[in-house]
Amino acid sequence: GVEKKILVIPGDGIGQEVTTWGQKVLTAIAANYHHKFTFEEGIMGHVAIEATGDPLPEETLQKAKNSDAILFGAIGHAKYDNDPTLKVRPEQGLLKIRKELGLYANLRPIKLFDELLEASSIKPEILRGADILFFRELTGDVYFGEKKRTEDRNTASDLMIYHRYEVERIARKAYEAARTRRNKLCSVDKANVLEASRLWREVMQEVAKEYPDVETEHMFIDNAAMQLIKDPKRFDVVVTGNLFGDILTDEASQIAGSMGMLASASVGDKVGFYEPIHGSAHDIAGKGIANPLASILSAALMLDISFGLKTESQRVIKAVEATLRQGYRTMDIANKHTVNEFIMGTDAMGAKVLENLN
Amino acid sequence: GVEKKILVIPGDGIGQEVTTWGQKVLTAIAANYHHKFTFEEGIMGHVAIEATGDPLPEETLQKAKNSDAILFGAIGHAKYDNDPTLKVRPEQGLLKIRKELGLYANLRPIKLFDELLEASSIKPEILRGADILFFRELTGDVYFGEKKRTEDRNTASDLMIYHRYEVERIARKAYEAARTRRNKLCSVDKANVLEASRLWREVMQEVAKEYPDVETEHMFIDNAAMQLIKDPKRFDVVVTGNLFGDILTDEASQIAGSMGMLASASVGDKVGFYEPIHGSAHDIAGKGIANPLASILSAALMLDISFGLKTESQRVIKAVEATLRQGYRTMDIANKHTVNEFIMGTDAMGAKVLENLN
Ligand SMILES: CC(C)[C@H](C(=O)O)[C@@H](O)C(=O)O
Ligand SMILES: CC(C)[C@H](C(=O)O)[C@@H](O)C(=O)O
Repeated sequence: GVEKKILVIPGDGIGQEVTTWGQKVLTAIAANYHHKFTFEEGIMGHVAIEATGDPLPEETLQKAKNSDAILFGAIGHAKYDNDPTLKVRPEQGLLKIRKELGLYANLRPIKLFDELLEASSIKPEILRGADILFFRELTGDVYFGEKKRTEDRNTASDLMIYHRYEVERIARKAYEAARTRRNKLCSVDKANVLEASRLWREVMQEVAKEYPDVETEHMFIDNAAMQLIKDPKRFDVVVTGNLFGDILTDEASQIAGSMGMLASASVGDKVGFYEPIHGSAHDIAGKGIANPLASILSAALMLDISFGLKTESQRVIKAVEATLRQGYRTMDIANKHTVNEFIMGTDAMGAKVLENLN
Repeated sequence: GVEKKILVIPGDGIGQEVTTWGQKVLTAIAANYHHKFTFEEGIMGHVAIEATGDPLPEETLQKAKNSDAILFGAIGHAKYDNDPTLKVRPEQGLLKIRKELGLYANLRPIKLFDELLEASSIKPEILRGADILFFRELTGDVYFGEKKRTEDRNTASDLMIYHRYEVERIARKAYEAARTRRNKLCSVDKANVLEASRLWREVMQEVAKEYPDVETEHMFIDNAAMQLIKDPKRFDVVVTGNLFGDILTDEASQIAGSMGMLASASVGDKVGFYEPIHGSAHDIAGKGIANPLASILSAALMLDISFGLKTESQRVIKAVEATLRQGYRTMDIANKHTVNEFIMGTDAMGAKVLENLN
């Protein structure tokens, strides 16, 4: 068995409710396979601002650096969304931890569980067989470029900026992954308008030469946002910048039936960071109805990517599959046209997955 | 009858093939309703670079300024897409004319013709009744902020920037439109990360106070990209920045069945500019199979918005509807599951609309 230190950061909103299930699944896997996972907890986001005034307290950052992997929930709170003038904001915590840990590659696998074929707003025949792996660059772009507000507060700006090395390293990661899949890579940019995108495309074209066995395609973001819905099966690996990746992967959640199903892995220098792609979802927070599967699937990604425990990771995915096959659904993936479904809350759903794990 | 000077700029790729049909429809309307439309032609984009070295020759710009309205086709060419290092680029022509004519508000109505309910990748029950009017800001944002490339060519940037007055004027246009519709407005930004978006949201919140009868919602772009597919019916008027608007409206084309159906109007200081939202589509250019309906519907928007000819505009829309009802389809809107369809090329399709106009 292996020994691993895992930092759990539930964060804000439904992060609190769902992350506990990712952790329970990891605990169950450790017991089943004789691994030793020790857990610590850290605060980040709105809860951290309330407790310490800082969205990413130094203590959490230190724990993060000393851990083998991090299981994260979600970040954000309506208070800040409604008041754009607030200076200290929950999201700064997430952006800072991504930067500090050098988490430059955000992997978002988009795959539909057969059982959810009807849960999406997209036609089943369009979805069947779709299987996309997104690589979203995570520590550059307009997210981290200089922000300015004039004194009179009437002009505001953010710098969209990319450096060659940033594009190169995410390009390589994406190409390596394409080699283990269907050997197709689509790079998304807006090179017809943006200089940062022209650099992006130049570098992609160069790196492409090292991977002649992978078929490369370049697509503009506006077209990609359309093609993703029109014909998701045309994509294998998609690689793109921070902002375009944010938009495309949320959109792509409709391919997986629901946002509540999607996990992500952020990797880079050393520690891996695992989180659902859904946000804090204030509107349903505290109601016990959030879908815990994205957190559970984030745990599965951790087992695979950070710990190299492929069997254990597959075991978790199979347990999720079994749960769906038995007809258990949270609200977001319910399909009113089906009779053999049992709609349940977060805890009941999580418990079913645990049962199926044993 | 009225007298109007119309500048026709076919531009690149399928722009050449489809714009002629927008023009023919305008000619037919003039004849039917005793108006006098005089047409001039101008060049822009790749064709203009080839002819003059300039993507927007001064002559075209002067003609544009002296016209009452402009019917435009598309811009772009594979040559430039494949070589991001080229300095003179077709798109610069389009961006410059938008700026020079002060076309700050780009209106993109998204409405599905009943006959195309099955042409989309989205389920009919999700689409039925969807009716969205996008207001995309068109002369600011990262499109027009300063672009930089370092000497060593290893770093590239674009400035995402907004001024208060830019947000205010598009906000008012969008709110005024919401009042003539279902009194709902959704403003899309990324205020949890971007300073330009925080200014955007502040200004929107201020302008909202002038329109207490309109229900205002603020949404993050990632969520909006998802909601648009999940539940398009929740939107009425959507207002957003230049970049987010570019992405969302292309994505929204799936709600209208196909990109080939969508028209847009760019308005602002004086002259109105009408164009399909589809691009130059190199892959099908010159084959005579492009859908002329977006150009024809752009002409309909011109009649309505620039000339105030509502009856004539409706007449064009009815002719398009009739053509679809008769089963005529271009390739992009064909539905292989239907038998009573006649697939045709650009010219045959355009001719059918003309027939239905008389
Ligand atoms: C919460 C927000 C800062 C974040 C982002 O935009 O990166 C989120 O949307 C995500 O995708 O992880
Ligand atoms: C061709 C390009 C510059 C343009 C844009 O991005 O604005 C196009 O995509 C559009 O939407 O009109």
